[in-house]
Amino acid sequence: MPCSTRSRASSAPTSSRVASGKPASGEDSLIAQYFRPLATDPGAFGLDDDAAALKPDGSDIVVTTDAIVEGVHFLPDDPPDTVARKALRVNLSDLAAKGATPAGFVLTLALQQAEEAWLKPFAAALGEDAVRFACPLLGGDTVSTPGPLMVSVTAFGRTPPGKMVHRSGAKAGDRVMVTGTIGDAALGLAILRGGKVRAAASDNAARDELIGRYRVPQPRVAMAEIVRGHASASMDVSDGLAGDLAKLCGVSGVSADIDLSSVPLSDAARDLVSRGVVGPETLIAGGDDYEILCTLPDHRVEAFVQAARAAGVAVSSIGKVVAGNAIPRFVDGQGREIVLERLSYSHF
Amino acid sequence: MPCSTRSRASSAPTSSRVASGKPASGEDSLIAQYFRPLATDPGAFGLDDDAAALKPDGSDIVVTTDAIVEGVHFLPDDPPDTVARKALRVNLSDLAAKGATPAGFVLTLALQQAEEAWLKPFAAALGEDAVRFACPLLGGDTVSTPGPLMVSVTAFGRTPPGKMVHRSGAKAGDRVMVTGTIGDAALGLAILRGGKVRAAASDNAARDELIGRYRVPQPRVAMAEIVRGHASASMDVSDGLAGDLAKLCGVSGVSADIDLSSVPLSDAARDLVSRGVVGPETLIAGGDDYEILCTLPDHRVEAFVQAARAAGVAVSSIGKVVAGNAIPRFVDGQGREIVLERLSYSHF
Repeated sequence: MPCSTRSRASSAPTSSRVASGKPASGEDSLIAQYFRPLATDPGAFGLDDDAAALKPDGSDIVVTTDAIVEGVHFLPDDPPDTVARKALRVNLSDLAAKGATPAGFVLTLALQQAEEAWLKPFAAALGEDAVRFACPLLGGDTVSTPGPLMVSVTAFGRTPPGKMVHRSGAKAGDRVMVTGTIGDAALGLAILRGGKVRAAASDNAARDELIGRYRVPQPRVAMAEIVRGHASASMDVSDGLAGDLAKLCGVSGVSADIDLSSVPLSDAARDLVSRGVVGPETLIAGGDDYEILCTLPDHRVEAFVQAARAAGVAVSSIGKVVAGNAIPRFVDGQGREIVLERLSYSHF
Repeated sequence: MPCSTRSRASSAPTSSRVASGKPASGEDSLIAQYFRPLATDPGAFGLDDDAAALKPDGSDIVVTTDAIVEGVHFLPDDPPDTVARKALRVNLSDLAAKGATPAGFVLTLALQQAEEAWLKPFAAALGEDAVRFACPLLGGDTVSTPGPLMVSVTAFGRTPPGKMVHRSGAKAGDRVMVTGTIGDAALGLAILRGGKVRAAASDNAARDELIGRYRVPQPRVAMAEIVRGHASASMDVSDGLAGDLAKLCGVSGVSADIDLSSVPLSDAARDLVSRGVVGPETLIAGGDDYEILCTLPDHRVEAFVQAARAAGVAVSSIGKVVAGNAIPRFVDGQGREIVLERLSYSHF
């Protein structure tokens, strides 16, 4: 539990609040103070136990886990509230893409120090998102580390039995759909790093919007039931549209033809592309989009689009699933194939 | 999934196998190669998806999460196979103490590099333990980090509805019981650190036994059903017997009187105590024991002890739950109270 910094360790031990019998003054109790209010679900047992419990209701429990590391998935000077939101939301995005309704999450926080100035806004933002997405904190573990801050979340969702939507169901002839817009987060990261994108993004509002898309994903939780009802295959776009589509196609045993001009772009992204600041590769191989990429039979498209519109989520058709096992092809408005040097980010 | 190194990153991207279209030669595929064989459960979907699924069978799903960090929970030169076993077993220990039967786990691995020489023995040992404890790998996430190695596990167990055993049920008059022996792991860590314990532990077999207890916990999985059937409160001893008992008592609203001479010690530990090399505090406040600490009504003790014996697990009565909210008292064989400077390890 976040309140009970578990350990057996080789760094210098310090007295805990329990050990000293002192009132709530230690850094342990700071953690308890900020995380306990988030543990509203009865299965969290107020973070006073070693484990949480998820009640059976006949659903499958869908489990996903994603960690974010300072300097790798977020920048060292990213605000604590955006780090909290990103850690939870990248997992909520996975659940939505699998057609699962959020049920709760556990958190592992590896910190160098437990500082109130960081923990307070982190926990507050996490609590806000837990309420917003109906995904309560169930438990966790807080450990000290001499290294970078790391936030690991395991999130749980529910689907009717056997109804989780897989990567593997795409069929030749299916339409390829994507939610929202693609490439904004990659541009936001490029702006934060400085360089030519930063110099070119002179409009403050557009710049903030792109940075916001990098720091705070918008998981398409509202799409979970719609994806479950219509999609033949689905995943979220986290490592880059091109690479993630290649993974989906690979597992499904198919390929795809994508019309680059149909890939939905924000006004800010379109402006940077039209001015030649970035090419399409930056947008479709950049990652961090946290949009849903799914395939569906043609006869499902109209109902899918209407349901998405009713849920307030824009969806776009970007191409077709085709037979074969080639890497998906991206074709520009003039019918020329764009050959990408890389499709997505890889850690190693 | 461990095979799909998820990211959106700020470190230098490299081509993944999918991106380059090359055959399985990258480090991504090393991970897939070693972890996919562990994902034997149908709910793991061969690690080819974004999430796993736990099927409903009317059980509560008990969820626990514990991370281990290089230099904090294990030593930088600990062998990869013991790191793997420790990461899983500290979680299995929690499940056992909660009365839950293992159902599976997800793994987050934060690595500086994906090296075959490390991953191969790590995955092999993890796979052995997954089979031994009937707790299959369901999924995970592999991320790069510039910092220390970190292994975070979220493990799932099942209990009949509402039957998870809590920390909070201890009643005045209950017996305090503990499995196995206490303090060995703390001595093992002291030996690895060198100093007087290392110098005094001249017997090689005893030394190896104590080091083994530090590196590779023995989770009392065989006790899960027995704890569920008899205990009023239960937790595992991870941060030190004294501190963990104080936590259990605190949540239960009781105190305890513990007879130090009844705390079970291994021959190796008893030898070091009898020669004055270490005092009782080293043993009962050291942590890393991963034994089960539980309380039960007197009339349950005989059946509990017999069931534990049948399961091949030694259990010892070490004292009584008493009314009040004092820190538990430890009394030596002469009736003198031992005042501990610290009860357990704390991270911050």
